[in-house]
Amino acid sequence: MLSTSYPTKHSLILSLMANKLLALSLFLPFLLLFLSGCFASTFRQQPQQNECQFQRLNALEPDNSIKSEAGTIETWNPNNDQLRCAGVALSRCTIQRKGLRRPFYTNAPQEIYIQQGRGIFGIIFPGCRETYEEPQESEQGQGPRPQDSHHKVEHFREGDIIAVPTGFPFWMYNNEETPVVAITLIDTTNLDNQLDQIPRRFYLSGNQEQEFLQYQQKEGGQGQQQEGRNEGGNVLSGFNDEFLEEAFSVDREIVRSIKGKNDDREGGIIEVKEGLKVISPPTMRPRPGQEEEEQRRGEEKRGDRRRPHHHHHHHAEEEKEEEWSHEVRRVRRPGRHDDDREGRNGLEETLCTMRLRHNIGQSTSPDAYNPQAGRLKTLTSIDLPILGWLGLAAEHGSIYKNAMFVPSYNVNANSILYVLNGSAWFQVVDCSGNAVFNGELNEGQVLTIPQNYAAAIKSLDDNFSYISFKTNDIPQIAALAGLTSSIRALPLDVVAHAFNLDRDQARQLKNNNPYKFLVPPPQSQLRAVA
Amino acid sequence: MLSTSYPTKHSLILSLMANKLLALSLFLPFLLLFLSGCFASTFRQQPQQNECQFQRLNALEPDNSIKSEAGTIETWNPNNDQLRCAGVALSRCTIQRKGLRRPFYTNAPQEIYIQQGRGIFGIIFPGCRETYEEPQESEQGQGPRPQDSHHKVEHFREGDIIAVPTGFPFWMYNNEETPVVAITLIDTTNLDNQLDQIPRRFYLSGNQEQEFLQYQQKEGGQGQQQEGRNEGGNVLSGFNDEFLEEAFSVDREIVRSIKGKNDDREGGIIEVKEGLKVISPPTMRPRPGQEEEEQRRGEEKRGDRRRPHHHHHHHAEEEKEEEWSHEVRRVRRPGRHDDDREGRNGLEETLCTMRLRHNIGQSTSPDAYNPQAGRLKTLTSIDLPILGWLGLAAEHGSIYKNAMFVPSYNVNANSILYVLNGSAWFQVVDCSGNAVFNGELNEGQVLTIPQNYAAAIKSLDDNFSYISFKTNDIPQIAALAGLTSSIRALPLDVVAHAFNLDRDQARQLKNNNPYKFLVPPPQSQLRAVA
Amino acid sequence: MLSTSYPTKHSLILSLMANKLLALSLFLPFLLLFLSGCFASTFRQQPQQNECQFQRLNALEPDNSIKSEAGTIETWNPNNDQLRCAGVALSRCTIQRKGLRRPFYTNAPQEIYIQQGRGIFGIIFPGCRETYEEPQESEQGQGPRPQDSHHKVEHFREGDIIAVPTGFPFWMYNNEETPVVAITLIDTTNLDNQLDQIPRRFYLSGNQEQEFLQYQQKEGGQGQQQEGRNEGGNVLSGFNDEFLEEAFSVDREIVRSIKGKNDDREGGIIEVKEGLKVISPPTMRPRPGQEEEEQRRGEEKRGDRRRPHHHHHHHAEEEKEEEWSHEVRRVRRPGRHDDDREGRNGLEETLCTMRLRHNIGQSTSPDAYNPQAGRLKTLTSIDLPILGWLGLAAEHGSIYKNAMFVPSYNVNANSILYVLNGSAWFQVVDCSGNAVFNGELNEGQVLTIPQNYAAAIKSLDDNFSYISFKTNDIPQIAALAGLTSSIRALPLDVVAHAFNLDRDQARQLKNNNPYKFLVPPPQSQLRAVA
Repeated sequence: MLSTSYPTKHSLILSLMANKLLALSLFLPFLLLFLSGCFASTFRQQPQQNECQFQRLNALEPDNSIKSEAGTIETWNPNNDQLRCAGVALSRCTIQRKGLRRPFYTNAPQEIYIQQGRGIFGIIFPGCRETYEEPQESEQGQGPRPQDSHHKVEHFREGDIIAVPTGFPFWMYNNEETPVVAITLIDTTNLDNQLDQIPRRFYLSGNQEQEFLQYQQKEGGQGQQQEGRNEGGNVLSGFNDEFLEEAFSVDREIVRSIKGKNDDREGGIIEVKEGLKVISPPTMRPRPGQEEEEQRRGEEKRGDRRRPHHHHHHHAEEEKEEEWSHEVRRVRRPGRHDDDREGRNGLEETLCTMRLRHNIGQSTSPDAYNPQAGRLKTLTSIDLPILGWLGLAAEHGSIYKNAMFVPSYNVNANSILYVLNGSAWFQVVDCSGNAVFNGELNEGQVLTIPQNYAAAIKSLDDNFSYISFKTNDIPQIAALAGLTSSIRALPLDVVAHAFNLDRDQARQLKNNNPYKFLVPPPQSQLRAVA
Repeated sequence: MLSTSYPTKHSLILSLMANKLLALSLFLPFLLLFLSGCFASTFRQQPQQNECQFQRLNALEPDNSIKSEAGTIETWNPNNDQLRCAGVALSRCTIQRKGLRRPFYTNAPQEIYIQQGRGIFGIIFPGCRETYEEPQESEQGQGPRPQDSHHKVEHFREGDIIAVPTGFPFWMYNNEETPVVAITLIDTTNLDNQLDQIPRRFYLSGNQEQEFLQYQQKEGGQGQQQEGRNEGGNVLSGFNDEFLEEAFSVDREIVRSIKGKNDDREGGIIEVKEGLKVISPPTMRPRPGQEEEEQRRGEEKRGDRRRPHHHHHHHAEEEKEEEWSHEVRRVRRPGRHDDDREGRNGLEETLCTMRLRHNIGQSTSPDAYNPQAGRLKTLTSIDLPILGWLGLAAEHGSIYKNAMFVPSYNVNANSILYVLNGSAWFQVVDCSGNAVFNGELNEGQVLTIPQNYAAAIKSLDDNFSYISFKTNDIPQIAALAGLTSSIRALPLDVVAHAFNLDRDQARQLKNNNPYKFLVPPPQSQLRAVA
Repeated sequence: MLSTSYPTKHSLILSLMANKLLALSLFLPFLLLFLSGCFASTFRQQPQQNECQFQRLNALEPDNSIKSEAGTIETWNPNNDQLRCAGVALSRCTIQRKGLRRPFYTNAPQEIYIQQGRGIFGIIFPGCRETYEEPQESEQGQGPRPQDSHHKVEHFREGDIIAVPTGFPFWMYNNEETPVVAITLIDTTNLDNQLDQIPRRFYLSGNQEQEFLQYQQKEGGQGQQQEGRNEGGNVLSGFNDEFLEEAFSVDREIVRSIKGKNDDREGGIIEVKEGLKVISPPTMRPRPGQEEEEQRRGEEKRGDRRRPHHHHHHHAEEEKEEEWSHEVRRVRRPGRHDDDREGRNGLEETLCTMRLRHNIGQSTSPDAYNPQAGRLKTLTSIDLPILGWLGLAAEHGSIYKNAMFVPSYNVNANSILYVLNGSAWFQVVDCSGNAVFNGELNEGQVLTIPQNYAAAIKSLDDNFSYISFKTNDIPQIAALAGLTSSIRALPLDVVAHAFNLDRDQARQLKNNNPYKFLVPPPQSQLRAVA
């Protein structure tokens, strides 16, 4: 029978699969390629049908502000066309001196950019261990009392990106004079969010208003918060008193506090009048370039052998600051080995100690730099691996007056751009060649640049700078002009005929601009050449 | 030209990518981290807009029942709010003695929990080989007739989870006296399903009613089954007789049977009066603890050298049961080597022999246990790798009377909980602090606990137990109270100020409950301490 | 305290995870299995609710045609039920002799099948380098002028599949007499597309009509193209003249050309009257079987040491054709080493030189072949790794008159089938057993076969052939009849009882058809046996 002389299509495919896979494992570059294809991919829900058909984009500003005892939380309406197409929600949180943002978790991954200020924050990795331990001598000096222990606490400063995974509780505190300003992007369409696309804050304490649920109320009238129902407001306040008494083994008085009933402080940011006391390693100013270098080499791999201080953080600004190691510190107690306690779980040095923060602000050395045009710094999952999990990246740009970011497009991401300083002229063009945005963008405004839409920026200020959140952990950008442009990558004859130019004109189109993404203003170019 | 002195942003990113990837490959923990990030991720469609905005959850019971010759298939309405938000469909199948559930495949992955009974099942891996072969001596003893060969047949018993991939045909048979009760979760929003979210059963034989399509009919009136059209009902009955005659090379009489036209047996579960004759290895009762151990070590790696029996399965209960190896058995025929036949395809020991089943029931040793509170057993893709493909996991819990599962939430999954025995009081709280469920859940009822919603359970019966299906293959749960809670992970001063407590109260809140997830009833705690 | 004597559920899971992952890394087959699970998975948006509930499928033909100077672009309406359920868009492009399809990129991955003709194409990988360099002696011989350099240029021929990633510019050119006919599938629901599901062409030049946007206009009236707005039409034409002048450093005249204003040539395919001059390696006819062999061994790994020619491509048909290497050629200039220039970025040999094309046409050796029934050739990401990124595969089939493709179904993909030649009778059956298609499909017609729907084909012509695009990079097909069928994989007794047959009939049903997917016509079977 002839048909038995050849393998079936299936066994063929299967056997090819097996052989090739074996080959792959021996062939490193390919393996890496696949791995990269694997973890570089960002999985996000697509927008609803036709949701990205813009006639016009607009510069967006926050349309709601919730005042707190020690700060403010402003929000952009997540039902706006642009933000729905991009599948994200945005907020800006301002924390005054000694302000503590109460712990909360969110139903989607978040990327936070610190526009201004310094402080400390914590992200709780559920299932990991408390690795920060308060020394035996307690603050009252009343003999050996149970010391406190808790998860890692980290410093942040201007220019930091902080990555917060879905469902991981987060808190932050301003321990200096300058108000902290933090811009938060919530990627609600990330598939880590298995609920619908409404951004939800789950506060662990307090009774404050939710910053995003109001938009649901206004819309359908089908929102979650009905009149009279919303007393309390944190994720524990809906449980019966008896449940909480038993679950925490505490008295009725403490239960009332858990449910936020003894609390008349306003909002999600409260003032810690005497300053927050949290153990954390001492901080000193880094040597110039030191932090950068550490970020590159992966600072989480090295230990810091100094003893931790126990200090009030609002005095920290008087000390020399030190960029402290992200390595988990363990206070060794005499006669007791950590490793004997419960056994190491093997993930202590990986998941539980993942680096959560990376600086891409003005003070870092840029990835691209032209002293007459500006500077660019990009953060991807290559530099901050946790972004691979979140499917997000970021770009910080500074463009000098009259310099230009050439027409270019995001190959595999949406970009949500927030102006940090100054102003610039933006043009965004759709696939039909229409300019869907052609105007000025000023400090504090937001513009979405949808995937594949072409955009160019001309700075109107010497101090223009922006942060751009990208919805892919390894975003790719393609220039349409300049040294790395797609047009330069085309054969000369293809350019000539496609653009209806003679070969000399085509050569000019390909080669005249010797710059890459940032082009200096025409007059400074003349000077540079002269 | 200055601009040529620095690499482009792109080549920078690319070269960083290459270098880091190379570094990664040498740095195992990170590589593994990424791998885990890769296959641990579960990719499911998000619910439609606002679909998870519940005012109230309800305890759900099946609302439809289809009677069969030898059993019943009950279904929960997949259009229910909770199930739509979770993106799943649920059914309960009861199979009487000698009942055979006809082979069918489904357009989404399935996780089946065996609530009661024992039997055998088969899952067809398209493209794999028939590895079970009937010995030469045929049942009539009429000389050398063509023996039968088929895919692997497996035993199941109470407490088993069975994983069925999208589009893989599945059948099961009850070979004992006790009725088999199986709870099936279909993950319709899993991206392996490229059709819409309607659960579809594709039966290979018979003419029975589809258990889920009725809900479509009732709804839009746009359903697939129109009057007069639905004769037949299996996936072959829509083909022309001529096609089937040729495709199977059989006569018109057999074609009528293929199309289900000679069949007046009711429904998808039929009675095999004389008992089903299928070759399978002999079974004996496992030594205590043996099965567990094997599950841990990965039983699929070891062979079983005993000869297979050819027996009637409905007599199996008289034999000693043995937990048989999942290794594929090959009956070697003299003078003929399997490996010479068509060549090994290299996947025989991997895809084709993937382990499909794992016991997490009452009889297994739990992952967490407190003799005064209860026991928990979790099954993830770490233990049963095929779950990584399906993006599903499961948890079995038993909680003793008045003991409590502390308030906690699913970090990265929805949880669909089915009560196996007894009853318990559930509270589920949303992000606004409202209790969306506060009531009793009884045997046979279902409750969805959406991602990030806080839930607590207080058992009302000593024999309360449940199975919880989770829509992530490595689900994470975060406790809000007890030894591993997120509140304990916060610094003392953060707890004190966030909850408006003094430091001593905050210390109580963090430390008073010394238990992890399960808390014994207050009175037994006293006894344990005394 | 008892509760501290067992690890928490979490640390247990985490530690299991760590241990197992370490074990995995030492256990190659499993690692590979996971890798395969990882990159074999195809992530696509699910269709809107109920969108795949067909009463009836129809043979589809293009319903719109846009004429160009040197060709035609025809489109299928992407709002058709079938194509919406499959989540794809389809077009057919005919390019006359000397026709150049202008460069454009698309917001989703594409798979192109060359039905007819030969030519050259380019795909721009943003961020990669120009590796093709024109020699110093310029065409006018006017001394050392700046030579041209550009990205790789590739040949294509009948039977090729070309893979184009999301957002990567693509152009093609017909350098022979025969018109080129190319069928393009755009996978709009692929999650690489972060916009909505409308297929968008972003042309780099010209002012032509967009082939798909018209459908949006017709529908909601909410389309992007409003009257009077759509002058220009390429992605650069929406920018201000000043921006373009500066970005390209060119004069106002060239800017007019960039914006498509000096261009009265019709449509996206233009005629290059004098023929396109592009450097590319010389081509010769391959030795019989050579190309196949190279495809298998991964031709991208070997170099081609011959000097490149500089020739007019429309004369290429006079030369001996050679299947040229995909290895990047670098023209070495004296005293200058490529590697000294900017340093190798390490990805030159991987991402930037990824193979983009693979022949599966009539001329290749098939994966399955029966001289009385036909031939099948499948292309997956195993053979063409870039398909793993795109999540697409393809199958080419030729079935001789009266031979049959047995009833079978796609396990994990939708299939979009286009008839290349001749005609055949198709039957497609849904889960209720209804034939949703039962009719002839002729040359140039398209039929979607949804995931898990059963389909059979009977050829009506000796030259019937088709190309089937599959929405999974490792698609699995399951036969319902024949040697590899799921019914054959069932135990004999299960078949007998499920189909209500006696054991002898069941044995016939399992074993009578000795063929795999393709069954010869009954009369030729008789001859073969005789």
